[in-house]
Amino acid sequence: MSEAAELDVTPSPEPVIPVRDEDEHLNPDFIAAVEAAIGGDDRVALKELAGDLHEADTGDLLETLNADERAAFIRLLGDEFDYTALTETDEAVRLQVLEDLPNEVIAEGLEDLDSDDAVYILEDLDEDDQAAILEELPYADRAQLKKALDYPEESAGRRMQSEFIAVAPFWTVGQTIDYMREARDLPDSFYEIYVLDPAFKLLGSVHLDKILRTKRAEKVTSIMEETRQAVLATEDQEEVARRFERYNLVSSAVVDENERLVGVLTVDDIVDVIQEEAEEDLRALAGVGDEEISDTVVTIARSRLAWLVVNLGTAILASVVIALFEDTIEAMVALAVLMPIVASMGGNAGTQTMTVAVRGIATQELGARNLLRVLNREILVSAVNGVALALLIGITAWLWFASPGLGVVIAGSIIINMLFAGFSGLLIPIALDRLNVDPAIASSVFVTTVTDVVGFFAFLGIAALWFGLPF
Amino acid sequence: MSEAAELDVTPSPEPVIPVRDEDEHLNPDFIAAVEAAIGGDDRVALKELAGDLHEADTGDLLETLNADERAAFIRLLGDEFDYTALTETDEAVRLQVLEDLPNEVIAEGLEDLDSDDAVYILEDLDEDDQAAILEELPYADRAQLKKALDYPEESAGRRMQSEFIAVAPFWTVGQTIDYMREARDLPDSFYEIYVLDPAFKLLGSVHLDKILRTKRAEKVTSIMEETRQAVLATEDQEEVARRFERYNLVSSAVVDENERLVGVLTVDDIVDVIQEEAEEDLRALAGVGDEEISDTVVTIARSRLAWLVVNLGTAILASVVIALFEDTIEAMVALAVLMPIVASMGGNAGTQTMTVAVRGIATQELGARNLLRVLNREILVSAVNGVALALLIGITAWLWFASPGLGVVIAGSIIINMLFAGFSGLLIPIALDRLNVDPAIASSVFVTTVTDVVGFFAFLGIAALWFGLPF
Repeated sequence: MSEAAELDVTPSPEPVIPVRDEDEHLNPDFIAAVEAAIGGDDRVALKELAGDLHEADTGDLLETLNADERAAFIRLLGDEFDYTALTETDEAVRLQVLEDLPNEVIAEGLEDLDSDDAVYILEDLDEDDQAAILEELPYADRAQLKKALDYPEESAGRRMQSEFIAVAPFWTVGQTIDYMREARDLPDSFYEIYVLDPAFKLLGSVHLDKILRTKRAEKVTSIMEETRQAVLATEDQEEVARRFERYNLVSSAVVDENERLVGVLTVDDIVDVIQEEAEEDLRALAGVGDEEISDTVVTIARSRLAWLVVNLGTAILASVVIALFEDTIEAMVALAVLMPIVASMGGNAGTQTMTVAVRGIATQELGARNLLRVLNREILVSAVNGVALALLIGITAWLWFASPGLGVVIAGSIIINMLFAGFSGLLIPIALDRLNVDPAIASSVFVTTVTDVVGFFAFLGIAALWFGLPF
Repeated sequence: MSEAAELDVTPSPEPVIPVRDEDEHLNPDFIAAVEAAIGGDDRVALKELAGDLHEADTGDLLETLNADERAAFIRLLGDEFDYTALTETDEAVRLQVLEDLPNEVIAEGLEDLDSDDAVYILEDLDEDDQAAILEELPYADRAQLKKALDYPEESAGRRMQSEFIAVAPFWTVGQTIDYMREARDLPDSFYEIYVLDPAFKLLGSVHLDKILRTKRAEKVTSIMEETRQAVLATEDQEEVARRFERYNLVSSAVVDENERLVGVLTVDDIVDVIQEEAEEDLRALAGVGDEEISDTVVTIARSRLAWLVVNLGTAILASVVIALFEDTIEAMVALAVLMPIVASMGGNAGTQTMTVAVRGIATQELGARNLLRVLNREILVSAVNGVALALLIGITAWLWFASPGLGVVIAGSIIINMLFAGFSGLLIPIALDRLNVDPAIASSVFVTTVTDVVGFFAFLGIAALWFGLPF
């Protein structure tokens, strides 16, 4: 009987309406209930529904609500609103919410957060608002946040949390455990503790599971992993992300230029960086920048237009090449019908190679050591696929226009363009990278220019020569 | 004095040659030294150089060496070769290494690994080799790995590690700590322990930092976080990755269909999944599948050709549209010169919208709830940019061919094509997703078809009507 009683873990009451549906989207019924509670100014119902949500769910919920509802939501929840949720919304929503809140209220909300979350919320505000909010914070918090905001954007110093547990090298495991039981201002969650020398220099780290497995009398230094290479606070977050990923890290100490421990990075912040990085390449290749689903028409139109105008240059250049052959086309209109095929096949093949090259550079799988091997392979792949496509297209053109000559001409120009596509698809990203230009952003314009110009020039030029047409 | 002595943490000797250079690539000098040691059959030098490397560095090193060197490297290192390194190489290298090793040697190497790493290495082998290696393993390990391999590919059950620490709900924190100090077969590293009822059903989890902060006499249930929604072993790894990312998880319990704890997933396995997922979309949009930098020419050529042939269909369709207007072009060759501009601008704009849509669907930021708002925005963006580009191109065409009419015709067709691009760039991925076709793979063919066909048709058709040309 007594054991059964022990097992009786009282479950917290299940929410009546599930927060997410089967596809893990926010449940429309749940959203409707929240909106009803907001509309009816019903503090009790809203707290019941949303007071206990995970910050990520609250963030998604804020994105779904409109601006007025967001303000009312935060006002009605009052102290139960967890400002961490603002780190889970996209930037446009975050800025709108902060815009509508008085600075004292924001300051009060930030006080309870870990420093990394507070910095994340503050960093996109303009300097005046930042200063005004910092002014409202207690001295220690303010100094800590100011210091973090002094690190460059997208640096480890901006992403780290300044709360950590550090012990002296002569402490035992037992002392360390006792300290953690008594200490008050511990970070929200942590995975390792750090060992510092008297000058606050980082000596090493101890994973919590090691502490738990070790007898109380042991010295922490005996189970400590020595720090070989700590993250520098000024280091770029992408470099740090690559190291987390490569070495499967869960957290890492961050030090200043004097090797003194200043903070801790945890993998949950880094996961976002890793995903952003892969996504950045995708967006850059398509020319869409870092727009967000909640951005305005003007912001989006402007950022996309730049890319379109650059590509317009490419398109006009291709037209200039075609214009060289106006007389040729006039003499044989079938050439105008077929010429886009040559350019488009080259463009597609070039994009394939380029995508592999851009990701290879980003993940450091492609470098000087294997460049020749990969180039060799790309040329072979282009040759193989060029011949295959040339046969397919050559026969199609021959049958369509009942002209074997036209089949030969298009087949030859396809092979030429495919080779240029493979060559430029690999070498243009690499050259841009050497010149310190982001290959993801700039490559596709150049590669398309090559495949368009070579495609039209080869096809129309060979045709003019083969058929003895004017040009 | 005595305190200074306490601080004297004897550093392990620094390796003479750094493993990585400034760009964090493997240091060429280091690679050369390793190759020299392999060439000289110098076991001692090789162990000195590479015996103590992180598995990720060993993995990168294996990728750099050629096949013969890889075999010699593993043979010379002997017991000091950590098979976890094989989880850090790409698939082609891993399979080649395993091919060259006797099954008994592989089995011996796998015995020391956590089950998730062993499964990762085994899962790509063919069934005969798998069976032969499993045969060589001790019974308990074999049963555990077989069970994991029975879960579907890319499921949580394949990625989880079967080692975990579970305690009964009536245990105290003190009992739990004592148990961890005494237990032998603990996982390599862990972040939380699990509380199970007598039927092995999962009740909840306790983070290690909670255990360390809590007095010995407390019950584990009093600091336990109740499990609301555990990961199912059969669940797809991408879904699990999304949950890790959304809720900033570091580890999560995995349960079977009876809610019994069967394993633990940790974020380091999931980070790879998250990155792969974002990268998969990028590759799918460019039509390059999951090829790796070490794949052979034939593998790559074949996978890329499929995509090129599909796109050839699109290109031919566009040519058919142009062929409808052969007489029109013959009457006015300038149309042939300008027509690729209209198609290419539409293609670029369509790709922009499509990229945003595909990622929005993947990250669940785009769904039924905001579809109308986003569609509305895309149409506005297309209209704004369409008018801007139309002006630019219209004036260019007018000046180039000294024909204001040609300027008007191309401007009008650009606006039409940009609207179709925005419309199809958003709706095609969404429609494909509804039909359970991966929008990343199939969207771009359809979108390009729309922008090519509409581009050529609108431009040539409007021109024929405007100038009263034959068609």
